[in-house]
Amino acid sequence: MREDNLIATIFAPLAGEPGVRFDDDCAHVPAAYLAKGAVVTMDTLVAGVHFFADDAPDLVAKKALRVNLSDLAAKAARPLGYLLSLALPKNHDAAWVRQFAAGLAGDQAEYDFALWGGDTVATPGPLTVTITAIGEPAVPGGLLRSGARIGDVIFVTGTIGDGALGLKVVTKTRFRDTLEAQDVSMLADRYHLPRPRLGFLEPIVDHITAAMDVSDGLALDLSRLARASGCAARLKAATVPLSPAGRRAVDSDPSLLNIVLSGGDDYEILFTAPPSAASAIVAHGSATGCSATAIGTMDDGEGLHIVDAEGRPITLENAGYQHL
Amino acid sequence: MREDNLIATIFAPLAGEPGVRFDDDCAHVPAAYLAKGAVVTMDTLVAGVHFFADDAPDLVAKKALRVNLSDLAAKAARPLGYLLSLALPKNHDAAWVRQFAAGLAGDQAEYDFALWGGDTVATPGPLTVTITAIGEPAVPGGLLRSGARIGDVIFVTGTIGDGALGLKVVTKTRFRDTLEAQDVSMLADRYHLPRPRLGFLEPIVDHITAAMDVSDGLALDLSRLARASGCAARLKAATVPLSPAGRRAVDSDPSLLNIVLSGGDDYEILFTAPPSAASAIVAHGSATGCSATAIGTMDDGEGLHIVDAEGRPITLENAGYQHL
Repeated sequence: MREDNLIATIFAPLAGEPGVRFDDDCAHVPAAYLAKGAVVTMDTLVAGVHFFADDAPDLVAKKALRVNLSDLAAKAARPLGYLLSLALPKNHDAAWVRQFAAGLAGDQAEYDFALWGGDTVATPGPLTVTITAIGEPAVPGGLLRSGARIGDVIFVTGTIGDGALGLKVVTKTRFRDTLEAQDVSMLADRYHLPRPRLGFLEPIVDHITAAMDVSDGLALDLSRLARASGCAARLKAATVPLSPAGRRAVDSDPSLLNIVLSGGDDYEILFTAPPSAASAIVAHGSATGCSATAIGTMDDGEGLHIVDAEGRPITLENAGYQHL
Repeated sequence: MREDNLIATIFAPLAGEPGVRFDDDCAHVPAAYLAKGAVVTMDTLVAGVHFFADDAPDLVAKKALRVNLSDLAAKAARPLGYLLSLALPKNHDAAWVRQFAAGLAGDQAEYDFALWGGDTVATPGPLTVTITAIGEPAVPGGLLRSGARIGDVIFVTGTIGDGALGLKVVTKTRFRDTLEAQDVSMLADRYHLPRPRLGFLEPIVDHITAAMDVSDGLALDLSRLARASGCAARLKAATVPLSPAGRRAVDSDPSLLNIVLSGGDDYEILFTAPPSAASAIVAHGSATGCSATAIGTMDDGEGLHIVDAEGRPITLENAGYQHL
């Protein structure tokens, strides 16, 4: 299948935004879409590194989109459009590409945004997907990871560790015997399909001093937030929210806490706010069905300090996922 | 070298746009930058496919940027910023990345735009560079390839075929014996380093009915413009502008005309305008030092029809570069 056909028959129908004039190699985005400025982000997924070559194509598409949407969510930005680069091995087949496009279409409908352009190329290497997502910020200038202040409370949305535990399920290195089938299924699903927390921050954005998404492990990402903000972060490990399946996994093997805190693939929002806003933030979480849990405080000093329920330091075996 | 270090030490200094708040995984672009809307484009280059693995890293960086800038130029858009995805083989070294970044820095200064963000990942495959460039359009809604009308004159900027002939030079399959050293050098340079025609269209934009850049070969790209516009294109091969080196190459071997017309890597602008504007357009080319040459007309019907100096049909051996 040649590029013109691929674009025309499979990807062009995804470029459905009526106000955006799609022209194969460029998209024209009207000023009205960008009246509040833009938040832009880009993430690349490589087969065999960030997903498995035999993963379902629609799930690969959704993961590639959602890791970007998670970045937008953590900046209180609403997705507007995206560009897609697809580097395909020579032996790709059209059925794979069609299923991939079906995954894109599903998430475009789910999250109300559209394809704005991109590129398709051949590669002698593994299938590689790069997405650039463009969003509309809720506040001018948006949120940064660098605004946390000493004394701020550290929050995360949802639950931590499910994606990393799910990877152990998917690779069959853990849990097939020790967890119930429904826990295994839930964790694997959380690994395959991030749930970007779009819309969560907007109603509470005035309280928030710093925010980023958790993608490379809570420990590493929190240490980045602390460094960018010029403070230390004190993380209370016992307060980190776990799903019921994650809780049962850690209860069955306490050493898994290391994977929970450093494993990555969470795609939750990590953010800070002053203590005066804490109860409003927790109430917002309860009201929306996406919990916000206080997991520590920003302190004077530098670095990440993890403590257990008795306040004793915990040292992780590794510091999180580094891409290189 | 780990990702945090790579970003901090090599790429962060490239994110120098003072108005854009750079936050590693997202950039916040103020509304003032986007008051005219935006033109967005994305291109991927794969080592061994779009460049040679042993090409100079700074030239790889510049080529990756310039193929995108060429898309913006063909839409009368001024570059504002870009996002970079770099997928690096495991054995990459920091010296390569530093030279690559130096190439980016050079072109940022040359074209006055800045890095807005991106991603760096490891790949078991070849080095792969994806760039998303964002530009400010000179006219609301921008230019499309689909606006050509029957009777319009077809123009190209600069000269055609140098990049494709340069590839033959670089791969040593031609010319080492038959062309002078300075011609060999000029053609190789044109292959390695596109010259995006930024700013060319803006003063004449009111005349232009359709525009796109020539990247996959004049014949294929003109056939795309014709199809998008719902007309036929009649290309007079003898009027296609050649550089002195390109002219000498074709004179020495007339069969090379096929490569000139279908080889790709031109990064010139292909555009159409009504005959009444033709003399103003040619005069604009002369005044700016970047020629605009009439190479044919849009006709009733469909498809691309190439004719020689006597009006006889010419059939190409292949239709241009297809990415897949």
